[in-house]
Amino acid sequence: MPGNKQVLVAGRPAAIPQPEHFEIVDSEVPAAGPGEMLIRNIFLSVDPAMRGWLADTSNYSQPIAIGSVMRSFAVGEIVESNVTGFVVGERVMGWFGWQQFAAVAPDAVIRKVEDPDLSPSLALGILGLNGVTALLGLEKVGRPNAGDTVVVSTAAGAVGSAVGQIAKLLGCRTVGITGGAEKLAICRDEFGYDAAIDYRAHDLDRALAAACPRGVNVYFDNTAGSISDTVYRQLALHARVVTCGTASVSSWNPAPSGPRVERIVMTRRAQIGGFVVLDYMDEFQPAGVRLAQWVREGKLRYREEIADGIEQCPGAIADLYNGRNLGKRLVRL
Amino acid sequence: MPGNKQVLVAGRPAAIPQPEHFEIVDSEVPAAGPGEMLIRNIFLSVDPAMRGWLADTSNYSQPIAIGSVMRSFAVGEIVESNVTGFVVGERVMGWFGWQQFAAVAPDAVIRKVEDPDLSPSLALGILGLNGVTALLGLEKVGRPNAGDTVVVSTAAGAVGSAVGQIAKLLGCRTVGITGGAEKLAICRDEFGYDAAIDYRAHDLDRALAAACPRGVNVYFDNTAGSISDTVYRQLALHARVVTCGTASVSSWNPAPSGPRVERIVMTRRAQIGGFVVLDYMDEFQPAGVRLAQWVREGKLRYREEIADGIEQCPGAIADLYNGRNLGKRLVRL
Repeated sequence: MPGNKQVLVAGRPAAIPQPEHFEIVDSEVPAAGPGEMLIRNIFLSVDPAMRGWLADTSNYSQPIAIGSVMRSFAVGEIVESNVTGFVVGERVMGWFGWQQFAAVAPDAVIRKVEDPDLSPSLALGILGLNGVTALLGLEKVGRPNAGDTVVVSTAAGAVGSAVGQIAKLLGCRTVGITGGAEKLAICRDEFGYDAAIDYRAHDLDRALAAACPRGVNVYFDNTAGSISDTVYRQLALHARVVTCGTASVSSWNPAPSGPRVERIVMTRRAQIGGFVVLDYMDEFQPAGVRLAQWVREGKLRYREEIADGIEQCPGAIADLYNGRNLGKRLVRL
Repeated sequence: MPGNKQVLVAGRPAAIPQPEHFEIVDSEVPAAGPGEMLIRNIFLSVDPAMRGWLADTSNYSQPIAIGSVMRSFAVGEIVESNVTGFVVGERVMGWFGWQQFAAVAPDAVIRKVEDPDLSPSLALGILGLNGVTALLGLEKVGRPNAGDTVVVSTAAGAVGSAVGQIAKLLGCRTVGITGGAEKLAICRDEFGYDAAIDYRAHDLDRALAAACPRGVNVYFDNTAGSISDTVYRQLALHARVVTCGTASVSSWNPAPSGPRVERIVMTRRAQIGGFVVLDYMDEFQPAGVRLAQWVREGKLRYREEIADGIEQCPGAIADLYNGRNLGKRLVRL
C-alpha cells in the first residue's frame, strides 16, 4: 500500500512563505468514512492567496493551523466513494490540500471536471480559481462597458492574462502592465493586449498616459504598490478599481505607506471594490462552462508552469512572488 | 443706486484659501439682460469644497479664473426678471457667487426657496448642499441597512451632523468622530449619535472598537488622514465607504502618504466610492422636500454660524478648516 505524502504547515510566515514554513511527512492513506470519498490528487494548485491563508492577521479565511495539511485547491480522481452521486473514476476539483490522498465530504468538492477534451489541470487555472477570478472580478466589480479602457497589473500572470483577454472579448481596449521583456512580448503576442507596458523598462506614468489617452475606466489591480499609485493618478471619471491582489507588497504587517488616494477617489467619483473569488463558489460551475467555451474556440489562451512531485510544493509560493513566474503554477503528482 | 460689492479671486492658494487670495471690489449693479434675472443675494454660502474649486490641479470642476467673482451658492431674491416663470419677489437658491447682486440666466438657479415657514438660509445648508450631500451620499454610496453601524467623521459639522441624524432615521446605529469637548457634547445631546468620540482626547482606535463591536458597516468620510486610517482598520466585511471630503489634509500637492489600504479593501470586500453632490443637481429639489419634512418634524437638527457683511467672506474658508467651526457657515448681506 502506498503512503500519503502530505505538506504540513510548520511555521507562520511574516511575509512571503518560504520552504522552511513547510514540512513533508509520510502518513497512511486514509479510508473514506461514511459520507466521504477518497480522492487521489493529480494536480495541486499554487496560488498567491496562500500567503494570506497562512497569515495570522485578520483575513478572509481562518488561518491554517500549524501542523495541519496546507490548504489548497486540487484536482483528483475518486478512488473510493461512500457518497451518492460521486462515482469511482470521476474527476473532481475542490479543497483537497497539498497531499497525495484526501478523504473528504462532498462539501469539499467545488465542481466535477467534465471536460474530457481539456486537461484536468485547467480546472485549477483558466477554468478554475484564476479564470473565474478574472471573469467574476471584472463582471461584479469592474463592470466594463464596451469601449472602456481596462488596465491590468500582473498582465501576463494567470489571473491578469485572463482579465485582459476577457475584457477584450467584452469589447474593451486592454492595456497590460508587466515586468520584463519576455512577459511584455507574451502580453502583446499571446494575450492580445492592445498595449503592453514593461514597468521596469518604461516610465510607467508616461507610457500609461500614452496608452490611455482618455484615462483608465477599469483598473484590475493584482499588485497594489507603486504601479497602482501611477494607475490611480490616471483614473477616468467614474472609474472602477477591482482590488484583487497585492503581489508587489511583501509584507502587510505593518502596512507600507503610499500616497493617499482619497482626493482622486472623490474628484473622479471612483469606485473601488475588494474581490475575493471564494465569495462566489456557487458560480464556479457556470463560470467554468463559459470559460471552457472560450478556450475551445481559441479565444482564451493560458500558460501553465507544471512542476513534478510533491517535494516541489514548499518553495512554490515564494516562486510566485519573484516575478519570474509565467502562467498558472501547478504541482503534478 | 447702491453699488455691487463683489469678492474676486486674487490668487490661487496652494493649500487652504486665506484672506489674501481674495479682493473686494465695488462694481455697478448689473441689469438683467434678455433671458436673465437680477438677484439680490441674502445669504452667501461658505463651503469646504471651495478649496477644490480654487485649486489649479485636476478637480471635479473648472478652476475659477483669477480676477473673476468667487463661485458660490447663494440664496437671493429676484429683483428684476426677464424670464417666464421667475417672478420679482421670489426667492431662489443657485450659483450666484460671492457678491451682492447677480444677473443670471435660469440655469444658474438650482431651486426656488418655497418653504416660507423656514429660514431661507436653510436652502444653503440642511436643505441644500450639506443636507443633500448627507442624504444622497448615504443613499447612493453608503447604502446603509437598518441595524448597520454608521461612522461619520467631522460628526458635528454641517454635513456630518446631517449624516448621523439621517442614518439614525434610516434605522442605523450611529458613531460620530469629532474634535473637542464642546463638539462631543453636541454630537451626543443635539445630533443624537449613539456614541461619540473626541479623537483628540481619546485613543481613537480603542474608542472606535468599543463603539463598534461588530465593526464599521458604513464610513462616511469627510476628513481622510489618520482618522480614516483608524476607521479603515475596523471596517466590517462588505463595508461601504463614502469618500466625501478631506478636511484633515491641508494640501494635496503632492499627496501626503498614509498606510496603504489595498489589503483591507480586498480582504473585507470593502466598497469605496467618491461622492460629489454636484452630480445630482436634478435631485436637489426632491431631496430638499424630504429634508424639510424632517426639519419640520424636529427629527433633523442643524446649526448655523452666520457672519454679517460681505467683508467676512475672504477669511471664511480658512475658518472652516481650523476645527473651531460649529455648523453651516454663512455670510448674511
